[in-house]
Amino acid sequence: MRNNDFKDIVFNRHSIKSFDANYKIPREEMLEILQEATQAPSSVNLQPWRFVVVESDEGKEKLRPLVKFNTRQNDTSSAMILIFGDMKCYEKADEIYSEAVRRGYMPQEIKERAMGFFLPAYKSFSRQKMNDVVKIDSSLMAMQLQFVARAHGYDTNVIGGFEEDIIAKEFGLDPERYVPVMIIAIGKADYEYHESVRLDVKDISKFV
Amino acid sequence: MRNNDFKDIVFNRHSIKSFDANYKIPREEMLEILQEATQAPSSVNLQPWRFVVVESDEGKEKLRPLVKFNTRQNDTSSAMILIFGDMKCYEKADEIYSEAVRRGYMPQEIKERAMGFFLPAYKSFSRQKMNDVVKIDSSLMAMQLQFVARAHGYDTNVIGGFEEDIIAKEFGLDPERYVPVMIIAIGKADYEYHESVRLDVKDISKFV
Repeated sequence: MRNNDFKDIVFNRHSIKSFDANYKIPREEMLEILQEATQAPSSVNLQPWRFVVVESDEGKEKLRPLVKFNTRQNDTSSAMILIFGDMKCYEKADEIYSEAVRRGYMPQEIKERAMGFFLPAYKSFSRQKMNDVVKIDSSLMAMQLQFVARAHGYDTNVIGGFEEDIIAKEFGLDPERYVPVMIIAIGKADYEYHESVRLDVKDISKFV
Repeated sequence: MRNNDFKDIVFNRHSIKSFDANYKIPREEMLEILQEATQAPSSVNLQPWRFVVVESDEGKEKLRPLVKFNTRQNDTSSAMILIFGDMKCYEKADEIYSEAVRRGYMPQEIKERAMGFFLPAYKSFSRQKMNDVVKIDSSLMAMQLQFVARAHGYDTNVIGGFEEDIIAKEFGLDPERYVPVMIIAIGKADYEYHESVRLDVKDISKFV
């Protein structure tokens, strides 16, 4: 990491839509960024996020018609990180909780009690409810990803406008299982950001 | 802010479920935290997040039966921040974009072109699509909120298990318009965190 200044990383973050097209983030660093991003919290630690990192010319070519008015980010970013939510994330519960027991973070009986409690609930969720869970958790992680990227010297843009109905299939994922959440363009910024305004929180909050 | 160490804030963040029940975050500082949290990005900057900050004994009493197995956070936190997504967030578009023009961040013709482009799209979104947009944007903000809280010396817990169907109405909001996203418990931690494991990103990523 190149920057450890919290205020600079967080409050000087801006949506960057054009990047140095000649710069590629090394694979090892990209994996570090993703590993650091996924320290984010998730509901009962099921970590429903899954990644397709589109960085090759062929990958970008395939993605271009799917990103609507966001082709500049596609064409200039180091990578377009496609974030999907795994509607069957609970299939990794035993792997996650067993590792926690193995490392001594959790006693075996707590693992069994927890899984006995949340697994039936997760399996009974409607598609709508599971959609909400995986999108909320993946979005928490996505904000952490953006900050970690800045700590590494990169900038990002969250992209919500893309062909949601076909992107999973186009990249070889089962669209019933993997729901697209967002795309994050990442790379070295090649222009100055635009300032933007925020609502006064007093106008959007009430205290009870 | 008391802490500006990015690594400490981000990687020593843990879900804290019990707080010093005698400590209240001053109102001015809570507003600062929310204002700093809402510097997060959102789709076309519509900032669909809305807050109900439950901090009084009466508010906590009303919330307790709605938070299922999360009563400890309710009873000990400085506040339970209820985050709702405004399904009519686009009604504030003119306020937001006019202020950007007033401050010189955006020329008038860009404002008009942008609003002419996204407003009809937003108004035509299905309830499902708008639900996704407001929950994704609010969750991005919620992660920023958790980091800002730590910079202020506080800790947090994201709560997804609560009575989603009745919480808006119970707190005086129109449930058709305001969809609950999550609750964030915030306060001074009163115990050591538990470690937790994460999946190896190599197992949940592919590179294209």
